Amino acid sequence: MSLHGLSLLAGTPGQTGGKIFRAVNPATSTLLKPDFHEASNDEVAQALDASATAFADYRTRSGAERAKFLETIATEIEALGDTLLQRAHAETGLPLARLTGERGRTCGQLRLFASVVREGSWVDARIDPALPDRQPLPRADIRRMLVALGPVVVFGSSNFPLAFSVAGGDTASALAAGCTVVVKAHRAHPGTAELVGTAINRAAAACGLPAGVFSMIHGGGATVGIAMVKHPATASVGFTGSHTAGRALFDAAAARKHPIPVFAEMSSLNPLWVLPGAQHERSAAIAAGLLASFTLGVGQFCTKPGLIFVTRGPDTDAFLQKLADVVHAAPCGTMLTGGIREAFLENRAQITGLKGVELLAAATAEASEARTETSPSVATTSAKNFLAHPALATEAFGPFTLVVIGETAAELAACATALEGQLTATVHGNAADLATAQPLLAALERIAGRVLINGFPTGVEVCPAMNHGGPSPATTDARFTSVGTAAILRFARPVCYQSFPDTLLPTALQNANPLGLMRLVDGKLTRDKL
Amino acid sequence: MSLHGLSLLAGTPGQTGGKIFRAVNPATSTLLKPDFHEASNDEVAQALDASATAFADYRTRSGAERAKFLETIATEIEALGDTLLQRAHAETGLPLARLTGERGRTCGQLRLFASVVREGSWVDARIDPALPDRQPLPRADIRRMLVALGPVVVFGSSNFPLAFSVAGGDTASALAAGCTVVVKAHRAHPGTAELVGTAINRAAAACGLPAGVFSMIHGGGATVGIAMVKHPATASVGFTGSHTAGRALFDAAAARKHPIPVFAEMSSLNPLWVLPGAQHERSAAIAAGLLASFTLGVGQFCTKPGLIFVTRGPDTDAFLQKLADVVHAAPCGTMLTGGIREAFLENRAQITGLKGVELLAAATAEASEARTETSPSVATTSAKNFLAHPALATEAFGPFTLVVIGETAAELAACATALEGQLTATVHGNAADLATAQPLLAALERIAGRVLINGFPTGVEVCPAMNHGGPSPATTDARFTSVGTAAILRFARPVCYQSFPDTLLPTALQNANPLGLMRLVDGKLTRDKL
Repeated sequence: MSLHGLSLLAGTPGQTGGKIFRAVNPATSTLLKPDFHEASNDEVAQALDASATAFADYRTRSGAERAKFLETIATEIEALGDTLLQRAHAETGLPLARLTGERGRTCGQLRLFASVVREGSWVDARIDPALPDRQPLPRADIRRMLVALGPVVVFGSSNFPLAFSVAGGDTASALAAGCTVVVKAHRAHPGTAELVGTAINRAAAACGLPAGVFSMIHGGGATVGIAMVKHPATASVGFTGSHTAGRALFDAAAARKHPIPVFAEMSSLNPLWVLPGAQHERSAAIAAGLLASFTLGVGQFCTKPGLIFVTRGPDTDAFLQKLADVVHAAPCGTMLTGGIREAFLENRAQITGLKGVELLAAATAEASEARTETSPSVATTSAKNFLAHPALATEAFGPFTLVVIGETAAELAACATALEGQLTATVHGNAADLATAQPLLAALERIAGRVLINGFPTGVEVCPAMNHGGPSPATTDARFTSVGTAAILRFARPVCYQSFPDTLLPTALQNANPLGLMRLVDGKLTRDKL
Repeated sequence: MSLHGLSLLAGTPGQTGGKIFRAVNPATSTLLKPDFHEASNDEVAQALDASATAFADYRTRSGAERAKFLETIATEIEALGDTLLQRAHAETGLPLARLTGERGRTCGQLRLFASVVREGSWVDARIDPALPDRQPLPRADIRRMLVALGPVVVFGSSNFPLAFSVAGGDTASALAAGCTVVVKAHRAHPGTAELVGTAINRAAAACGLPAGVFSMIHGGGATVGIAMVKHPATASVGFTGSHTAGRALFDAAAARKHPIPVFAEMSSLNPLWVLPGAQHERSAAIAAGLLASFTLGVGQFCTKPGLIFVTRGPDTDAFLQKLADVVHAAPCGTMLTGGIREAFLENRAQITGLKGVELLAAATAEASEARTETSPSVATTSAKNFLAHPALATEAFGPFTLVVIGETAAELAACATALEGQLTATVHGNAADLATAQPLLAALERIAGRVLINGFPTGVEVCPAMNHGGPSPATTDARFTSVGTAAILRFARPVCYQSFPDTLLPTALQNANPLGLMRLVDGKLTRDKL
């Protein structure tokens, strides 16, 4: 399968003529063929105009039709076979086993959203029938449901070239909601993006959908992205990446004449507490679990535990020794890009260079710059020092974590309330620890979107109950998740239909309940017809 | 009951010393006693700091406790009796009958939200039980529910001194969600605000809640309001008022280090179509209904129909004549404030002064400036002219409406798609009209939060299916309603609990389902226990 290196504008390849770039294999530092062509502003406008036109059609498609589209995308992605995995491997340095798993997750997400929209109750249908005889005033027939918001701009992430990129969670949930999508492909894996984008194009054609339902733009960073966010047709934005970039998109969206919501999942330290009983009972398991979690994907997960809070006790030195031992023996790993590696080394140096921070352990394996490698390491500091230096709460996106040792429980409680918004927060404790952990858990619930007990935050389950989100600066909107079925709610808005004849109502709101939805009728949840 | 004229800071009256202002009786243009004292920045900070402290407690209160609080507020408001109605009448010029009805609506809203949180299923509880044997990886136990967002700043509106003010819909839904509230009282009815504010204070004390659960600030407009929005403790903002003020609050919130959501319900023209068959069959009824709707509350409703689209046909002249007749005979009315009256006269003059706009009819009754009166009027223009002059789509907040006459259905369809976001859109048609109205209805659904057939948009029902919201510039967030039970969703965010022992879970998520909630367990809605 040969790559053309062009944007995909409503099913048609874009123009050459823009700036040219190439993907880099981080494991070898070699440039990959072919050339990729940055889109012009005209091409951005073309994609979004086509998206707006297609939206007028696609928004009216039934849940069953959208489900079929999502499932066909999954099938087309699977049909790319090894071509996709090999290209993603070359562009990201991620192991083939990981990419195989991620492809499974990507297709699983598409099928999960298909099941959600095929069942249909997500539209939160509500019906308050007319009360013509009510005194002092009659009540009209009032019905409400969620409808699609409009064209969604999705920014592919660097660290999940499949599951949070062209056909990732944002795209799947937007298409499920009835929105059309224009993806800004990540420049680190443009070939992977082209392969997946053409798979979506094929699925759209197979399902008889307008080609404008999906477009994909290649671009060189901020300029093209901001143009996409500012285009009048854009109704919402999904983004996973750095705080700087996410905030720039949010600011551009908020400054529009008609502001639009931006769901940017940006940065998180994912603090993890190891309480005394857990240190005593499970030191070795926690040390091993921590290493696995903070080095998973070479530490390039937004849920990487980057801050470990430890209450000083009789078992603390032993726990730290066990952690040091496993880190010493850990292998190096190839990071996604040279830029990510450099940023990581810089942030890590900044943290470890601060007063009161000591290196606890670094892997003995030597990292090769040519292979874009870094080696895992862990440092320690005191809770007092952590509270005095807010810069210690900086995300170093890579295989590094900072252990913060509190001399008293009060010091560690102060750390919990000093933290900014997080995607996750975790507590390890035995039964005795947990019996008194309620205040800590309550504080963590205030700052985090997900709270875990005796687990590790990496490995985000895609399921109805997942929440992958959290207060600022972890995301720009704590009210929504970007993983799990509730992610669809980001791309919908309610519409109320008053005194509509049954035949003019959307199917979801008709008296006979032809879709069999769970609906709130006169304040009661029921699948009954009226 | 004597008024002290001070802000209410966590149950305690604020300081004198700030700028002084008085309420004005618009029906007599006389100043009302006592003096009211604008709050200082210190008092704003005091209120929000107390709100943050109280939030840590109030957020943990059960649905039953919150319900009791809301119901007690309703009882305390009713206990104010005629004192409240008389003060509101003096401050707003609104008739006592209207205010009696509005008090009923206010207390009804409080009790409706009480019923929602007592039942409890609004938290959207989701449970995905552990799958320890799943291959290739086990699934952890994952549960999710909505929790309160944090202290909410509510701006009282001018036009609903009870139902959208101190204890109005925003306050009721925020308190229901578990948020504490700081209200910025509207300066047009500060005495009404103080009476209702003290009723809330009494209810908080009676329910054993921390006094900081509610505070109220008197202030002189933008400065105090912006300070409230920028305070770090503020987690969300509810506002009903002008586009300029709402946008300023939105911009201040978006520019924060940690942006917060703003729900500003700002402006709407509420376009209404009268199709040919409806003109033929129901001219007189539609003319009378239109007059009643666009002059209800002297035209000071956000859902006032301000644009009437009419297809030219054999019955159009007769319809326009009937409309002119009822407008001629309509009485004048006292507006809420001199400032609102002046803005109305200015906006109306701007519209009627534009080329191609002709006065169709004005009430013959003479409006008295001393009584802050205006008289109803209606003008006409052509669809061509409307499309050529975007300034014709300006809201004139008062008893005026503009009839836009299209020579062809295509012209009127173009008008529908040229309109910006609206709270409502309405179509009047007979069976033959509606048989071909689907494209128009689809276009209106794209721009409006509520679409009505053969009704009038004023008189917003408070019920589960209501949507009072819409695309920008009608509101700053089309995804939420400010009226009806779904308004509670504005002030909540999801939290996910992973691998929690049952006893550490919130009651709503425990295995036994002690609250009897409808929950999504393993993707299926059920009230069963696990």
